[in-house]
Amino acid sequence: MIILGIDPGLGTTGWGVIFSEGNRLTHIANGRIKTDAAHPLSHRLALLGEALNQIVAAHDARHAAMEEVFVNKNAQSTLKLAQARGMLLGCLGSRQVEVGEYAPRLVKQAVTGTGAAEKAQVHAMIGRLLPGVKIDGADAADALAVAITHAHHLASARRLKA
Amino acid sequence: MIILGIDPGLGTTGWGVIFSEGNRLTHIANGRIKTDAAHPLSHRLALLGEALNQIVAAHDARHAAMEEVFVNKNAQSTLKLAQARGMLLGCLGSRQVEVGEYAPRLVKQAVTGTGAAEKAQVHAMIGRLLPGVKIDGADAADALAVAITHAHHLASARRLKA
Repeated sequence: MIILGIDPGLGTTGWGVIFSEGNRLTHIANGRIKTDAAHPLSHRLALLGEALNQIVAAHDARHAAMEEVFVNKNAQSTLKLAQARGMLLGCLGSRQVEVGEYAPRLVKQAVTGTGAAEKAQVHAMIGRLLPGVKIDGADAADALAVAITHAHHLASARRLKA
Repeated sequence: MIILGIDPGLGTTGWGVIFSEGNRLTHIANGRIKTDAAHPLSHRLALLGEALNQIVAAHDARHAAMEEVFVNKNAQSTLKLAQARGMLLGCLGSRQVEVGEYAPRLVKQAVTGTGAAEKAQVHAMIGRLLPGVKIDGADAADALAVAITHAHHLASARRLKA
């Protein structure tokens, strides 16, 4: 099963595609979508959606995952993040891609075994879980982490059903 | 010039289309896009985008307007609003619709003459500015108000240029 992980951001959205089969994970691709802060918000959001549509089509992704969003101290950056997330989620919905949403703590737990892990620990574990992966920066790493979380979650759900 | 005003919301998005020519405003259409809270967020956002695309196409709108968004006390509803707004803005951007954004105070000012006006006063003035209009609820009224604001703003900009 192909799983697309997304780490939304208005300036930079990280993405990562993995293949999950039973307990085996394989890295397929990862990268960043960048938008220019000098452009109007509507253009930047449109660019995010168009780039995501291309990624979904290129990998024929039917499953995606994102971290849940919370309001943090910086209200302006929360609003930017939420608007970017809305555009990305809506585009996935339009393409009938099913989306899993996970709390950040759950992502850390799934990747490292502890919900209190540091970012660096999460990123290091991705290299072990996806041997040979070359990661295009921290946003793509976070996207791969949430994709791995979704793979584990779906695998557990299948085990419970069986 | 056709102007599409939008009052974004995840559950209900109000919209209103007016025609602006010099100082003359004419009402074209208004309504609500409703999404079902029982559906996944990605599906609800997709529905908002698809309905908006139909409205833009039906009226051949090239100009749109929305109120600016702020973080309010209820963090969860702010996040829902911002995600809906992101999807709507991104869809407008994808269709090359130019979007004006206005602070709520400016909308009240443009419609009633005072930035401190009550909602009821704003809604009553819309009836005067767009004679014969039948408004499909408060969200559509707010959408017409921001469309009127955009019309005034563009008319002033033209006067300044002339």
